[in-house]
Amino acid sequence: MQNISEIEELIRLISKLPGLGPKSAKRIVLKLINNREELTKPMAKALAEIYNGVSRCKNCGTLKSNSLGCNNCESSNNKFNKICIVENISDQWTIENSNIYQGYYHILGGTVSSSNNGSSKQDLLIDSLINRIKKEKIDEVILATSATIEGQTTAFYIQNSLKDTNVKISKLAQGLPIGGEIENLDDGTLISAFKNRKKI
Amino acid sequence: MQNISEIEELIRLISKLPGLGPKSAKRIVLKLINNREELTKPMAKALAEIYNGVSRCKNCGTLKSNSLGCNNCESSNNKFNKICIVENISDQWTIENSNIYQGYYHILGGTVSSSNNGSSKQDLLIDSLINRIKKEKIDEVILATSATIEGQTTAFYIQNSLKDTNVKISKLAQGLPIGGEIENLDDGTLISAFKNRKKI
Repeated sequence: MQNISEIEELIRLISKLPGLGPKSAKRIVLKLINNREELTKPMAKALAEIYNGVSRCKNCGTLKSNSLGCNNCESSNNKFNKICIVENISDQWTIENSNIYQGYYHILGGTVSSSNNGSSKQDLLIDSLINRIKKEKIDEVILATSATIEGQTTAFYIQNSLKDTNVKISKLAQGLPIGGEIENLDDGTLISAFKNRKKI
Repeated sequence: MQNISEIEELIRLISKLPGLGPKSAKRIVLKLINNREELTKPMAKALAEIYNGVSRCKNCGTLKSNSLGCNNCESSNNKFNKICIVENISDQWTIENSNIYQGYYHILGGTVSSSNNGSSKQDLLIDSLINRIKKEKIDEVILATSATIEGQTTAFYIQNSLKDTNVKISKLAQGLPIGGEIENLDDGTLISAFKNRKKI
């Protein structure tokens, strides 16, 4: 093994992936070596295609296929009146999987306070968000940032940035998660659940 | 996400790797997308290089770089008098990592009884093993197949195949693993440890 640089390089790269270390990377590389046609070849192709063919949309922040254009903000088939603001792409995927929401997405690509350099607020694509709200005749902006300090700060910042647009702004409810046992809840969630209690 | 076929294809492929499922595959793909230059590009390259440049040596069964040749059996720098027989490449890597052994390897690529078709015994490269023993002036063949029924059957088959070569054949000791607690040992290991007990 030690003299085959190609294998060492692949083990090094794979062990950088989330949840994987050098040991599992070795196991994966062995699987790849033993399945050259079914795994190694198509995976090399898929990675090259993503590198060359998929990028972040400069308008709405979602991932788009370079050849097809952005199916979130460019497609003329979409006729939604809502935009859901999320921090990153995995948040979008989670919401899509739940099937609770039909509408446009706007991916900030981070939070306001997570980066301290001057350009961070520009990266959130606020200008193009305001343009989209006007152009697409959006009725409602749903702030679906995380219930963390960074997420809530970001939501507040966006709320402020949009105050001239007169669009309806809402944010996700806070309270007990489904299946959450009272005895295991943290103080913040409990306080939120009490403050936002609903009459039945 | 659902309309970007490149991403779906990569998630599908990654979730086939050992220890990974659709959820961890998604997380890995997100990491790749967010680290295009540091991960996606070099990984596509590394996979293509392994696909095109690394193959199993037809003589000894180890992996070799196609451009450099097999550094196990072809290199003229190696002057060993031992061959260690293992079932597969991961066994070789494990033994190499332990630093207990300096010598040639012979990778069977499986066990005798694991496949039932007629060609299976040819795949074990027994003929080239016998040639290597003669050509390299090998004094000892170490059978390092697993302590399973398949592994031990294979060891017995190889022992039989080599009986005309007059080479010294040994196999790995069986007994208590280091750290093994008697109360947790299986019967087979205990029986083996009793049978092979050593005078002190």
